[in-house]
Amino acid sequence: TASGAGACSSLAHRCHHRSTAMLDVPFLPFCAFLGTLGLLCVAMVGTWCQHWRGGFSLDGSSRTFNWHPLLMVTGLVVLYGAAALVYRVPNTWSSPKLPWKVLHGSLALGAFVLTVLGLAAVFRFHNSQGTPNMYSLHSWMGLGTVLLFSCQWALGFGVFLLPWAPTWLRALYKPIHVFFGSTILMLSVASCASGINEKLFFSLKNGTTAYKLLPAEAVFANTLGLLILIFGVLVVAALARPSWKRPDSDSPDSRQVQEALGG
Amino acid sequence: TASGAGACSSLAHRCHHRSTAMLDVPFLPFCAFLGTLGLLCVAMVGTWCQHWRGGFSLDGSSRTFNWHPLLMVTGLVVLYGAAALVYRVPNTWSSPKLPWKVLHGSLALGAFVLTVLGLAAVFRFHNSQGTPNMYSLHSWMGLGTVLLFSCQWALGFGVFLLPWAPTWLRALYKPIHVFFGSTILMLSVASCASGINEKLFFSLKNGTTAYKLLPAEAVFANTLGLLILIFGVLVVAALARPSWKRPDSDSPDSRQVQEALGG
Repeated sequence: TASGAGACSSLAHRCHHRSTAMLDVPFLPFCAFLGTLGLLCVAMVGTWCQHWRGGFSLDGSSRTFNWHPLLMVTGLVVLYGAAALVYRVPNTWSSPKLPWKVLHGSLALGAFVLTVLGLAAVFRFHNSQGTPNMYSLHSWMGLGTVLLFSCQWALGFGVFLLPWAPTWLRALYKPIHVFFGSTILMLSVASCASGINEKLFFSLKNGTTAYKLLPAEAVFANTLGLLILIFGVLVVAALARPSWKRPDSDSPDSRQVQEALGG
Repeated sequence: TASGAGACSSLAHRCHHRSTAMLDVPFLPFCAFLGTLGLLCVAMVGTWCQHWRGGFSLDGSSRTFNWHPLLMVTGLVVLYGAAALVYRVPNTWSSPKLPWKVLHGSLALGAFVLTVLGLAAVFRFHNSQGTPNMYSLHSWMGLGTVLLFSCQWALGFGVFLLPWAPTWLRALYKPIHVFFGSTILMLSVASCASGINEKLFFSLKNGTTAYKLLPAEAVFANTLGLLILIFGVLVVAALARPSWKRPDSDSPDSRQVQEALGG
């Protein structure tokens, strides 16, 4: 049985390699799929607001509110997801990390700006309607997510992009930054789901278009909610995949920058 | 500069070890904290239903509905989280894996049974009130989560516990099972958040207890929602932590079982 176990173990090893290879999706086609899915989410939230909810304006009416879902999905889900995946593009691994850091930070900053505008839209709408702000669980988790995101960006900028942080601090903070990167996206898509759910209960109240009768708008926006969840899950999965991580991530170039700037 | 870079690199290496050690939380205290947080969530959802929503019964009224949040949070969040973490308990690593597999599968089965009862409660409530089922985004994502969970349990049982699956199939399916383990928990806590949000909009409509005036019940249930999200994030983080994973996970004992049963 000893030699049998040995053969079995070596077989298991070979099998493990073969089966791992079977699961190896190449990154770039996966990324193209994710990009398409993200753009579909943006197009769908825009279509929902335009076709069923009266379109967009800045007059403080519900057409001002409509900027809120559009900007949150575009910023805190899709552009955020793109920012998170920058280091996973294998073509970038052979070149210095600094330009990709700048791209990562810039995309995240763009996502943050859209997010803040998205918050401004809903606060403006509430204030002009005399509705209180920040009472629902959706608003608590959404604002909590945005606050986490602002800390994440500021700390990432201070620790990884500015040249003054010592190496031990970078090494200490990096797993925390990576962890919160995925966490914020999860919280963000969870906030989107509760927001879409809540908006449909608000908007679809009467007669033949009541939410519970599942009119076309409800099917459309429910589907949008599911697609946003799937997008978030796939981005988090891509981030977690070991073989898609940039190798040698304690990058020498960040130290070069430090040295060039006298760090 | 070459020797400088060498010294710097060796320093970075030492620093990396030191800073990683600084982040090393021991598993068991973390787990005790998680258990406390999970029990707090169960106690809070029970208190919410008992104190503000009229308690529990089986008569088809909203007191039947109250079983829904209690059973979902207990089953699909807390017990599910406990099941997911079984293999992370370091004390179990030196003993054979099979008893822990049985425990993992049993806890997950318990979670599944509570989940199905939780679904039965809301369907019974809707049917006795003449309310349609399965129209909200909350219901779509919730039922989707439960369907994924049922596939997860059945495939886990068939591939890992029954002795007939070949080694290559186990190796192929394992990363998929691990991935969906975390994904289902994320979707589950996202469903809880949208459900709590929706229930508060349903229940807190009038006068001084309107949701937007943030009465005590709203603060309590919003806080519950945030604690459930934090519980989910911490379980997913614990599952993802490399140093907390059971080493040598292509366990010999599953092969022993296979051999003992003639596999």
